[in-house]
Amino acid sequence: MTEKTEQPIDFRTEPSRYRHWKLAIDGEIATLAMHVKEDGGLRPGYELKLNSYDLGVDIELYDAIQRLRFEHPDVRAVVLTSGKERVFCAGANIRMLGQSSHGFKVNFCKFTNETRNAMEEAATDSGQHYVCAVNGSCAGGGYELALACERIVMADDGNTSVSLPEVPLLAVLPGTGGLTRLVDKRRVRRDLADYFCTLEEGIKGKRAVEWRLVDEVVPRSRLDETAKARATELAALSDRPRGAQGIALTPLERTLDGDRIAYGHVACVVDRARGVAEITVSAPEAPPPADAARIHAEGVRFWPLAFARELDDLILHLRTNEPESGLWILRTQGSADLVEAYDRALAEHASDWLVREIRLYLARTLKRLDVSSRSMFALIEPGSCFTGTLLELAFAADRSYMLDGTRAADDRSPATIRLTELNFGAYPMPNGLARLASRFLAEPARVDELRSLSGKSLDAHAAAEAGLVTFTPDDIDWDDEVRLAIEQRAALSPDALTGMEASLRFAGPETLETKIFGRLSAWQNWIFQRPNAVGQKGALQVYGTGQRTELDRRRV
Amino acid sequence: MTEKTEQPIDFRTEPSRYRHWKLAIDGEIATLAMHVKEDGGLRPGYELKLNSYDLGVDIELYDAIQRLRFEHPDVRAVVLTSGKERVFCAGANIRMLGQSSHGFKVNFCKFTNETRNAMEEAATDSGQHYVCAVNGSCAGGGYELALACERIVMADDGNTSVSLPEVPLLAVLPGTGGLTRLVDKRRVRRDLADYFCTLEEGIKGKRAVEWRLVDEVVPRSRLDETAKARATELAALSDRPRGAQGIALTPLERTLDGDRIAYGHVACVVDRARGVAEITVSAPEAPPPADAARIHAEGVRFWPLAFARELDDLILHLRTNEPESGLWILRTQGSADLVEAYDRALAEHASDWLVREIRLYLARTLKRLDVSSRSMFALIEPGSCFTGTLLELAFAADRSYMLDGTRAADDRSPATIRLTELNFGAYPMPNGLARLASRFLAEPARVDELRSLSGKSLDAHAAAEAGLVTFTPDDIDWDDEVRLAIEQRAALSPDALTGMEASLRFAGPETLETKIFGRLSAWQNWIFQRPNAVGQKGALQVYGTGQRTELDRRRV
Repeated sequence: MTEKTEQPIDFRTEPSRYRHWKLAIDGEIATLAMHVKEDGGLRPGYELKLNSYDLGVDIELYDAIQRLRFEHPDVRAVVLTSGKERVFCAGANIRMLGQSSHGFKVNFCKFTNETRNAMEEAATDSGQHYVCAVNGSCAGGGYELALACERIVMADDGNTSVSLPEVPLLAVLPGTGGLTRLVDKRRVRRDLADYFCTLEEGIKGKRAVEWRLVDEVVPRSRLDETAKARATELAALSDRPRGAQGIALTPLERTLDGDRIAYGHVACVVDRARGVAEITVSAPEAPPPADAARIHAEGVRFWPLAFARELDDLILHLRTNEPESGLWILRTQGSADLVEAYDRALAEHASDWLVREIRLYLARTLKRLDVSSRSMFALIEPGSCFTGTLLELAFAADRSYMLDGTRAADDRSPATIRLTELNFGAYPMPNGLARLASRFLAEPARVDELRSLSGKSLDAHAAAEAGLVTFTPDDIDWDDEVRLAIEQRAALSPDALTGMEASLRFAGPETLETKIFGRLSAWQNWIFQRPNAVGQKGALQVYGTGQRTELDRRRV
Repeated sequence: MTEKTEQPIDFRTEPSRYRHWKLAIDGEIATLAMHVKEDGGLRPGYELKLNSYDLGVDIELYDAIQRLRFEHPDVRAVVLTSGKERVFCAGANIRMLGQSSHGFKVNFCKFTNETRNAMEEAATDSGQHYVCAVNGSCAGGGYELALACERIVMADDGNTSVSLPEVPLLAVLPGTGGLTRLVDKRRVRRDLADYFCTLEEGIKGKRAVEWRLVDEVVPRSRLDETAKARATELAALSDRPRGAQGIALTPLERTLDGDRIAYGHVACVVDRARGVAEITVSAPEAPPPADAARIHAEGVRFWPLAFARELDDLILHLRTNEPESGLWILRTQGSADLVEAYDRALAEHASDWLVREIRLYLARTLKRLDVSSRSMFALIEPGSCFTGTLLELAFAADRSYMLDGTRAADDRSPATIRLTELNFGAYPMPNGLARLASRFLAEPARVDELRSLSGKSLDAHAAAEAGLVTFTPDDIDWDDEVRLAIEQRAALSPDALTGMEASLRFAGPETLETKIFGRLSAWQNWIFQRPNAVGQKGALQVYGTGQRTELDRRRV
């Protein structure tokens, strides 16, 4: 994890600053080529050989994927390939992993997982399809990148293979969903998957197709045209608009000033002594544009997109740079009426491509909260605007506290919350359910009943009655109860909380995403701690040194 | 984990030897009362105060649950309660946990989980329903035992509460499915579950009912009658026979002789140097009894039940006492025709209560393989009988090797495998699917096609064609290929293999069981390794010493 003396890692970038990726657009097909700069690591101490990657490489990938969605509505398919001659991608850089702390490794895997999930979501929800053209050795995280694509075309050239050599080479698991995608997405037979995952050299040619590891192999000379043909086929399925104008994701402005991080609509104060980060999202200050054209004209200034970008960046910043802030306090402030008006705009123009993108981006950002290894409490106080989209923050929180009544020496009205149409399915959790549906697994009918409350201001009593908030202390109890809850949370073991929250947040159905974040990540976390991987003679430590791994042979 | 100098832990017991449980039968209702003997720990160094338990206590519970199924067909509901005055159960003994190795803790949790799952399966599949009468403080593993019951009735006496204090007290997770059962089985609202799981003192009275933590509370004076009334209501739903005669689970005979473990139909040789345990299951030697009455008369000598008991005991023995045998080789020997004949008997008499119990027991035993943290290779050679029920061993294995053709200097016919009706649903995996259905997730229609092969002897070529085996080397390659595969497996990191196998074995749907073994166990394993729990100043180590826990506050 970043040491305090180090510069915080910045997730903001833009194509002109890319060092590792080349994005080229040709009509409805984009090509995203990985060309990792060996000496372009985020930190000193390792060289990014063989198109191996570190967090910096993935930050650029994330940025490119975002821009493809917003800046290029015309792009219906993306060919992901390597810009190098004989290697597609060697996966996460092993030396980088070897010198990283446990927390950094886990957080790095979380971000790379989210980025790959977003590639899949682009295809299913936004008509932007990914085709992988494997033009050289494709190992570990490289193959996991391919697995996140809808279609994998591989060169049949005697050199190119796919592999997941993490278990045999490094004594860790593929960290970016590889095992889950093998058997759950591509439905590779489990005994073949077992063999494949213990094989350093991987599998190439026809056998890779027969085993469902890739979709097709073609001679090297025909790889590009085949990948493009597949992209064109998938593009034909897309419902993205033709001839639409994208909106520019202009640089995100933020100020980092000691313990304060401030954006236009999102602000955060880090209280390191208490281990708390207090996050406040502000409502818009004016009504939404009257029609879709004016939403497009506002572009990144359109409030829902603006605060989504800010919140997204803040979550990534806090996760990576503030590991000791184990509790995030979520607050809102401003006009509930205006938030509701924006929700109406997002609902009314749902079929507009840009509005769809914004809604999907909000969904992805809220999902980042769900999978963050941080406790979250929502505090609902006078002056707040937990309405619709912003009410999702309270539903994403592990608990919510809502002040019942007014405060002494505060002439503002009592806090209320308000449901809107967007609480009923616009923002699914990783388990595929709306947060309300997850909340009321025991009473599915309750969710339908709640629709009748949409648009109504619910005070603490009504909100508690409806099961929408956890606790509703009044002014007399508020300060003590909230302070105690925060202190008690901060005193608990961060590890136990992470495991507890991951178990309680995802009841109900399982998806590829919950399997990746719930199950696979947990095994990986465990293995990342085991001496067989990270001990002095562990495989991850001795890799490349010529020393022999020493393994504790006991099975656990 | 057991040290080599220690006596191996023995899972065989019987009611006359119980030290911690009292089983009383009254018509269709049994009462199973926990009365843990404080100085009755399996090992020295801890006292089992407050009805806390160790593995020895759970071995008796497992035995009682098994006997209720086989020896008491008339029992339709079981009231689980405490034999002590003011405490129901304080959960797993903390000192025992504190002095146990990582491997021992994990294995202990696996066994206790399997036992609780078997209680639930008794209700859903065998008409034997569990009602918990909570008559005193019910904490941690105590509440998890209650959660495994179909109905929880709690005394409302100001003293009795339910709690999961593992996170606040010990910095670990509830280890026996508690978190999953809270939100997935009982569908407790996640914010209430969050609060509940951070509360040392737990929740009692009406609030416990409102939060769905228990089903009802009654005055202490009415607890027994209410629990009995609920048991009687559930008993009315049961399809268990009336007036049937149970069969006695007579002591299981086995010889432990150095590296050899031998039972009547199951034998095992442990090769500690190679880290391999070779397990051979033998076919019956005579045809099955001609009718159900004669199956009853054979009782524990009836081959399917006999080998299930032996294999069950062997799995538990190897898991607990042979942690360094990371690879289990699965073999069979004997007459495939006889195995098929027994499968026909199990199919024909499926509605007989005893045959149903035997099939369910086979299913539970095969599930133990699925969740064992051991690699498994099936070796299918001339003389083997991988048919029907025994073919499930090959499907449970991570890979299978089938010898193609005959061996030099061996006049036996080439190996064949044979499907029977029982491969198509009788033995579901923890994910609820037949092993065949799990195997062919990519081609569900294939499973139906395979039905036409039932009863046919498939040689290596046909078996490979049908996708039923992994590799089919011939005599020239067999020895080298198998030897290499075994050596390579043994050289891999045991931890990475455990995580890999857990990820690859359970593709497809998720159930309470896969969530418990796949997700919850993985988080618990991770947390069990973290200094915040098990370090010198970790919560589990300093508990009860008066020392303060020192926590690394970084979130991972």
